[in-house]
Amino acid sequence: MDRIKRNERLAAISRILTASPNRIYTLSHFTEMFGAAKSTVSEDLSILADTFAQFDLGRLTTVAGAAGGVIYRAIPSRAKAIATLEALSEKLSQPGRLLPGDFLYTNDITCDSDLCELMGEILACRYYDKAPDFVLTMETKGIPVAMMTARMLNVPLVIARRDSKAYEGSAVKINYISGDTGTLRGMHDLMKEFDVEVIGTGVVIATAEPRKKRVDGVTALMVLSQVNREEGSAVVKPSDWVYEIN
Amino acid sequence: MDRIKRNERLAAISRILTASPNRIYTLSHFTEMFGAAKSTVSEDLSILADTFAQFDLGRLTTVAGAAGGVIYRAIPSRAKAIATLEALSEKLSQPGRLLPGDFLYTNDITCDSDLCELMGEILACRYYDKAPDFVLTMETKGIPVAMMTARMLNVPLVIARRDSKAYEGSAVKINYISGDTGTLRGMHDLMKEFDVEVIGTGVVIATAEPRKKRVDGVTALMVLSQVNREEGSAVVKPSDWVYEIN
Repeated sequence: MDRIKRNERLAAISRILTASPNRIYTLSHFTEMFGAAKSTVSEDLSILADTFAQFDLGRLTTVAGAAGGVIYRAIPSRAKAIATLEALSEKLSQPGRLLPGDFLYTNDITCDSDLCELMGEILACRYYDKAPDFVLTMETKGIPVAMMTARMLNVPLVIARRDSKAYEGSAVKINYISGDTGTLRGMHDLMKEFDVEVIGTGVVIATAEPRKKRVDGVTALMVLSQVNREEGSAVVKPSDWVYEIN
Repeated sequence: MDRIKRNERLAAISRILTASPNRIYTLSHFTEMFGAAKSTVSEDLSILADTFAQFDLGRLTTVAGAAGGVIYRAIPSRAKAIATLEALSEKLSQPGRLLPGDFLYTNDITCDSDLCELMGEILACRYYDKAPDFVLTMETKGIPVAMMTARMLNVPLVIARRDSKAYEGSAVKINYISGDTGTLRGMHDLMKEFDVEVIGTGVVIATAEPRKKRVDGVTALMVLSQVNREEGSAVVKPSDWVYEIN
């Protein structure tokens, strides 16, 4: 194999790390791949970390120790997270989105994998330090965002279903009261059946009222504060915490 | 801004292009971003294309003309596609996977976003030349793979639901015969209601029999050929076309 140049190594390492967020790659992975010295790869990673920081493309962190290496996390800057959610909020506040029953039409958002990826990137920020084992979602609407959040955290996505299916194998079934927070409550109850500790609850949009939710500690990307039935719209805004992302 | 070095440009361009597969980026996008000349960025892209080819990281294609630029597609080599699907097939052929009713347990596969991404990369290869407008899937199991396929093709994901929901807005509802191919037939019928031309049908696993499916031209990643009820297993293999990927 010809000697691989730094240019080429950087292009390849960038692709490999960003395709597998929140996973430790050892230095040896890359020294073997490129036939390069550890010091050379270290320097590559340092250039990569600086470049990602400069262009707001996520964070590269070095992990010291025997199991050490490098981790890429698709953490957006505060400015990028705010810009993303303000644009989304504006779109969701457009007249005509409000459906009968005061539901907000969001299908065009959740069917867009780029938007779902951005939402997943932002939501995942809240959970890196808690290192969850999996992301649980309830079918169907939330699956794309939940999947992207799970991808960012590098954990499996578990989908709770409304009905058990023969092709799913054995199932634990619970009853719960339908509706937004009822569903969340039901998911928490389901986790109790498995002795699973819930370390956080993330949603795309929460309603501003009632402030005291049936489930504590809900992290919403956006908040819906009031509806205007006449023009079929709602006021949607990024959540307060987004303005304090570090 | 300090002058951006080639190293840094390559690291950033690699991240940007691979995060948005099958999308045309103009050269000006990068010349403006880096304050670099067109010839410089062209050379960057040529290094990137060679590196991706060398390390089997997808393909970079230059599009000529006024609307020209560069497109990244996460197309795996034949060897990578075969290796991916042979490993998956082996996993799916393990004893104990066969559920009552001869269903194969696949939840551990479809909950893994990395595996879903790989499957999406391979499935998308079949549809680049046909340039679909969207990917349609039926809730729930197939959503992760369908989402990743849609992401690779850079098109929206449309999810057909078993029941209409108030928060989905107006709906067209059809009746269909349940079961694997029945569901596919129903999805085709649904598309007819919208005068949509179906340019292809992709599934993760098809059964070897009956050879003549209720829907023509089904592209399966893997084929299930026989079941062994005693050891609760099935024989799963990559589809023939995978061995002929270019």
